[in-house]
Amino acid sequence: MKHELTHGGDWAGFLSNRGYLPLDYSSNISPLGVPPGVQEALRKTAAKADRYPDPLCRELRKALSRKESIPEEQILCGNGAADLIFRAVLARRPRRALVTAPTFAEYETALDTVGCVVEHAMLKVEDGFALGKGFLSAITPETDMVFLCEPNNPTGVTTAPALLTQILKRCRETGTMLVVDECFSDFLDAPEDHTREGDLAKFPNLLLLKAFTKLYAMAGVRLGYVLCADTDFLERMRQMGQPWAVSSLAQAAGVAALRETDYVRQVRELTMTERAWLIQQLAGLGLRVIPGEANYLLFQSPRPLSEPLEQQGILLRNCGNYVGLDDTWYRIAVRTRTDNQRLIEALGEVLR
Amino acid sequence: MKHELTHGGDWAGFLSNRGYLPLDYSSNISPLGVPPGVQEALRKTAAKADRYPDPLCRELRKALSRKESIPEEQILCGNGAADLIFRAVLARRPRRALVTAPTFAEYETALDTVGCVVEHAMLKVEDGFALGKGFLSAITPETDMVFLCEPNNPTGVTTAPALLTQILKRCRETGTMLVVDECFSDFLDAPEDHTREGDLAKFPNLLLLKAFTKLYAMAGVRLGYVLCADTDFLERMRQMGQPWAVSSLAQAAGVAALRETDYVRQVRELTMTERAWLIQQLAGLGLRVIPGEANYLLFQSPRPLSEPLEQQGILLRNCGNYVGLDDTWYRIAVRTRTDNQRLIEALGEVLR
Repeated sequence: MKHELTHGGDWAGFLSNRGYLPLDYSSNISPLGVPPGVQEALRKTAAKADRYPDPLCRELRKALSRKESIPEEQILCGNGAADLIFRAVLARRPRRALVTAPTFAEYETALDTVGCVVEHAMLKVEDGFALGKGFLSAITPETDMVFLCEPNNPTGVTTAPALLTQILKRCRETGTMLVVDECFSDFLDAPEDHTREGDLAKFPNLLLLKAFTKLYAMAGVRLGYVLCADTDFLERMRQMGQPWAVSSLAQAAGVAALRETDYVRQVRELTMTERAWLIQQLAGLGLRVIPGEANYLLFQSPRPLSEPLEQQGILLRNCGNYVGLDDTWYRIAVRTRTDNQRLIEALGEVLR
Repeated sequence: MKHELTHGGDWAGFLSNRGYLPLDYSSNISPLGVPPGVQEALRKTAAKADRYPDPLCRELRKALSRKESIPEEQILCGNGAADLIFRAVLARRPRRALVTAPTFAEYETALDTVGCVVEHAMLKVEDGFALGKGFLSAITPETDMVFLCEPNNPTGVTTAPALLTQILKRCRETGTMLVVDECFSDFLDAPEDHTREGDLAKFPNLLLLKAFTKLYAMAGVRLGYVLCADTDFLERMRQMGQPWAVSSLAQAAGVAALRETDYVRQVRELTMTERAWLIQQLAGLGLRVIPGEANYLLFQSPRPLSEPLEQQGILLRNCGNYVGLDDTWYRIAVRTRTDNQRLIEALGEVLR
């Protein structure tokens, strides 16, 4: 049995090969660690974890409803956003779907489980990997489902709001479900200008995907949620998997995370400063960098980097297994200045 | 949107209706609480939960392999056993399946997600809900998948080992995947005599389902696993859902749980003693009790019990929504003597 790992973040593989933990640039998580309030909530829940989790996540959905100003019944929580991608696909059971390339691989993996035909809208490096107007005509009445990652993973690029609105309208016309994955939108300079939350009421065919994972550094806890005005569809999603997907620990952690406003401000400030610094430094090393807007950056290298960087204890995300990229492309997380300096020095040594 | 809850254990609903936590007899969990070592592991992992979980659960599978004497590659971990039921169904994609009735509802819910035709082998009260030889002839070459819960939930009844062996052989002949759910087998008087682990090597069509949930009182943590000699099938199951289903917290808790041998001895002793006591007491109240062998008991009552017991702060599992039972049947967990005395007194008052 061969275990193929599709994604970055395999610190455990690194640890078992080399005997120590890497500096992990291959997964895109806040570098400030689990917020103290979230840690406290996890510790407090340990003794109560004998009970089954609340299958309806009542307390967490109430807290999210308050934060997002979305009715509770339009919120469904999952075991990380990835759980919800699979449930959405199982609930919609599309025969034909449209995804961009490159993008997050789990959309297509999930679509494969129902035998869906997947069309790729290729994003081009000469367009800076931005989505073009041609995307609209790719959406036809035969298109059952469209996935858009905003900002896109691994490019960090967002779609122009006017085009996104046209896509939403087009999908409504064609009876297509549009999934907008906003898991990284909290890292944008102005998330409130880019989120489509305001469109939920008008577009019941819109499913918004959100995660706690990245912003609150809770990837090991597993917690995500979707927002949708079509509450029957959410109920169908709920039935497309086990009732207890979200652990008691994740539910308590989520409620605590929503109180961490200072932490969020710090992560966002750090991301904006360090992203700019890294773009400049990578360009200074002669690398082609895509000016991403999230907490990660995509760049192209004239030389192989994974192996030499691993020698120095640094994990990168090689993008060779993304449809639409090849193994000259790498994705790195935006971390603290100390870490980033170590990365840039290590890259400099290899590229010199 | 109506949320229908299929199972017991809705302490959160009780809490939100009545303002306090119930004495929960409606879910079958060790009454001794989360083992201290597991709590400690959860608390220690809180600060490290920023990293993605190891998608391959390497450390946990190594520990399980040692405990079960099964090769690591024949073990797949999941977000509770329920996660693995859905993955098994998605990986096998059966057109026709056979389940007993009554039994755990998630088998059929999972089979529904792939549009499978589900046949019910009805267990009869006059047979003490035991599986009969007739089951063998119900397995045909058209049967893609069979689910057997051993001991069965909600009856607590086990299948005679000789018949189980015949079923295994019959399934091998007919090309049928047999899922034996041993999630409650640790509560049997002699689990080692009933488990089919010894048959894995000979029967690659056998999938054994196991959970940490019940024995280690970790239902809120979510952790289960399957054992199967067909490692390609396990790999397909892994791909039928997200790669990070098992949280870092669950992985650490699982490793710690496997060291809790004293705890297990205590839970098992308590279960045996209290199960016998409860059977006697329930019979003494004039109720028809099925002599189950697990950490729960099924009985029939001449009067409705849920509402009056809830008034006294006690949650029962009414079995009205089990195929093959009606709402005169109830399932209760086996708890400590203090709790059990309170339950029997409360039942006595209602039935008197």
